[in-house]
Amino acid sequence: MSGAPVKFQARKTVEQVEEGNDLAPKFDDRGLIAVVTTDATSGELLMQGYMNAEALQLTISTGEAHYYSRSRNVLWHKGATSGLVQTVQELLVDDDQDCVWLRVDVTGGASCHVGYRSCFYRKVPVAGDFEAKQSEGHVALEWTETEKVFDPDEVYGDAPNPTVL
Amino acid sequence: MSGAPVKFQARKTVEQVEEGNDLAPKFDDRGLIAVVTTDATSGELLMQGYMNAEALQLTISTGEAHYYSRSRNVLWHKGATSGLVQTVQELLVDDDQDCVWLRVDVTGGASCHVGYRSCFYRKVPVAGDFEAKQSEGHVALEWTETEKVFDPDEVYGDAPNPTVL
Repeated sequence: MSGAPVKFQARKTVEQVEEGNDLAPKFDDRGLIAVVTTDATSGELLMQGYMNAEALQLTISTGEAHYYSRSRNVLWHKGATSGLVQTVQELLVDDDQDCVWLRVDVTGGASCHVGYRSCFYRKVPVAGDFEAKQSEGHVALEWTETEKVFDPDEVYGDAPNPTVL
Repeated sequence: MSGAPVKFQARKTVEQVEEGNDLAPKFDDRGLIAVVTTDATSGELLMQGYMNAEALQLTISTGEAHYYSRSRNVLWHKGATSGLVQTVQELLVDDDQDCVWLRVDVTGGASCHVGYRSCFYRKVPVAGDFEAKQSEGHVALEWTETEKVFDPDEVYGDAPNPTVL
């Protein structure tokens, strides 16, 4: 843990936010900022989540990804339960600073609570492919990963599933 | 434009949503779903945005990225103004289907309204690097792109800047 508390600048002008070097993140009316997390080596999208201010400060100061769980309403040090810690290689902000991009190395090689490497293991056919495969407007998801990296029952035990219907 | 309207399934069980092949996206209380857009060739993160149901249906049926602009409150066919259309190579959904990943080819090679290739052109030092560079908890953003791909004034003219402070 770093000794210095991470501080943010106030958002004053569009030019400051878009073209300056002030770190002035925009948290929404829930106090959250969107986060995109990719594998630093493969470039694969691992997950999309949210941070509150504290999670962003801890991620910057410790170099390990922290999120805010909307389903559990808690600060969430990724890997605290599963051991699948994400070590941040690069942390980037977007033009209007309402999104954070983490490029991470993942201990254990998996980031998805279902047990897959990435949370994105199914795809939707689009355009002509959709047209060819659809039936009355419905189309089946197609798997892009077939083998789980870990057994979620072993890793999470009785912890409640975070998916909300 | 496709002839068939794209339809979604009702969300019934966690198993259906996480491990089934039903397309059953979760729209939040604003009617939106998060979208992550990466370059299909380089893997680079281009932007993070949102879709409403109509934007997702149009993206699937046409194969071109449509979003919902939260700042302008309109359906947004990316590239309609700038010409920087995003052609979808793959559209994936995450485990609980509250996020969409678009892997796209971009006409013109830029996705950012400020004129950069990616919206993510600045990074934040983390961990020991943060500690070494911070001053009273503040740290300067570092540029990862230095050349704009296009001049936003030429492309967008008098259109209002979408950044909200």
